[in-house]
Formats: sequence, structure tokens, C-alpha cells
Amino acid sequence: MSNKTQILAEEGKQELFIIREFDGPRELVFRAFSEPDLLLQWMGPKEMETTIHKLNNQSHGSWRFSHKDTSGMLHTFNGVIHEVCDPERIIRTFEYEGMPFRGHVSLEFLNFENLEGERSKISIQVIYKSVEDRDGHIQSGMESGVVDSHERLDVLLKSM
Amino acid sequence: MSNKTQILAEEGKQELFIIREFDGPRELVFRAFSEPDLLLQWMGPKEMETTIHKLNNQSHGSWRFSHKDTSGMLHTFNGVIHEVCDPERIIRTFEYEGMPFRGHVSLEFLNFENLEGERSKISIQVIYKSVEDRDGHIQSGMESGVVDSHERLDVLLKSM
Repeated sequence: MSNKTQILAEEGKQELFIIREFDGPRELVFRAFSEPDLLLQWMGPKEMETTIHKLNNQSHGSWRFSHKDTSGMLHTFNGVIHEVCDPERIIRTFEYEGMPFRGHVSLEFLNFENLEGERSKISIQVIYKSVEDRDGHIQSGMESGVVDSHERLDVLLKSM
Repeated sequence: MSNKTQILAEEGKQELFIIREFDGPRELVFRAFSEPDLLLQWMGPKEMETTIHKLNNQSHGSWRFSHKDTSGMLHTFNGVIHEVCDPERIIRTFEYEGMPFRGHVSLEFLNFENLEGERSKISIQVIYKSVEDRDGHIQSGMESGVVDSHERLDVLLKSM
């Protein structure tokens, strides 16, 4: 069975959905989304080097990390974590610090559910300050970064 | 000049805007939104008693407070604070803990700007997980709570 990342963005709405199935129960996938040493093994595009500056992975916690691209440029992101409900749900904010103006923050709802046969599905809803912010995020090439990350996560899950 | 709270909610969108002018510079209004001893003097409907359980008013901070209604019932809210940019902007999440299901979190963007004549305007954009969440929040009677709060804030600003 092949697992494929779907990104659903209805025209004119200030939200999108990222859906992906994984071979492995949600407990493992949740750990891979939560523990720094695991996150470093899959988060981000293949060709970039990731650094976790902070990950206080709990309700009312916060996070900050960077990807360094092949030209050496740092892309840094940060947010707060509204809720961690292990192994079901994470709700957190997201901001790319490289935006020309600050304040373009989105809110992510990550849901982890089990499927039959030791498989699981994650559904991430992202809500944005505006339709333009959402469309800008899509046009920034987020899809290839997300697809890359999920394929690396497939490999990690096999080894866990 | 009379100051009136406006709540703008376009049909079918998962956001709303709360707009209000105040007699007083944004620096004062920002303080009233930030300092617990000031917040306690205006936040919430007139007939309720407010308790601040936590207010770590900084970027990557968090908050939690309750309103006790006239029947003694507690209504508790919490969230994380993505960014505090004094005296311009606060970005924070908001959740009513009394919802039958958890996870119905919204994201608020508060902007403070100065107007002529020592006056100021606050614009709060709230984005919701769904149109239903937004409409449910409006139908819960939030408007009268917001209007009450702003009228109490008018009184506080006069004394500051």
C-alpha cells in the first residue's frame, strides 16, 4: 500500500488540510512529532540541515527551529504550543521569521488516529490570517518540503 | 465623541473583527490589556467576578482566567501567547474550557494604533477552526461581554 501526502486547499478559504497515512501506530508517529532526536531525523526538506533551538513539547509550551539550505541560508520558524494531548492531538502556532512583516502567524491542529493493521493517519488543519497568507504559503514550495519530510518519516518509522 | 464596539463577521468566513476606539493613547490601552491588576478592573461582563490564574504576558508566554457568574458557575479560558510587541500587537490563542469537546481553539491578532488627539483604536481579528465555531462564539453572547468590558475599560482609562 502506498502512502501519499495530500494537501487540500479549497479556493477562497483561509485554511488548508494536510492528510497522510503511515505504516505504524499513531503512538509511534506522535513520538516522531514530539521528540527532538526523532524530529531531527525527518523534519524538513531532504537537502536541508535542521536545528532545534527550543522544543518545550507540552500544553502552553513553545518551539523554534531552523533549516539551513544548501547555500548556507537559515530559514527559522517559531511558535507556541496550545495543547499536547498524547497521542491524539497537538495544537500549535507557526510563523516563518523570514517574512518581510511580522505577525503572519497560522494555527495548526494536528490529529493522529489509528487505522487497521498497525497503520495510522495524520490530519493537519492549518488556519491562516488571510487567504493571501495561505496561498503564499502554498506558493512558497511548502508541498515539496512536506512530501520530503513524510517520506523521511516513512524510513524512520520502519527503524523504530 | 462616543466610542462604540463594532463586531464585523462576514457570512461564511471563519474569522471576525472587533474594532473599538478609546480616549487615551495606545500605550495606556496596551497596558490595560497586559497588566493583571489593570485587566481585573475591566475584563469580562459587568456582573461577573474575574480571576487571573496565570498571565505570563510575553512572547511564548501563556494565560488562563475565569469569570464567575451570578449563579457561582465558573467559565474558564486559556491560551498561549505567540507574540507580544509592546505597544503595537499581541497574538494569542483562545479556548473556552467549557466546550463539550476540546480542541476548539481560535487565534487572536490584537492591533493597537494611535489616533489624533490622544485617542487610539484597537482592532482584534479572531480566526476560528470553522465557520461553525465562529458563529457559535457569536451566538454564545460574546458581544454583550465584549461591549461591557470595553465600557469598563473606558472608565479605567479615565482614571489612569
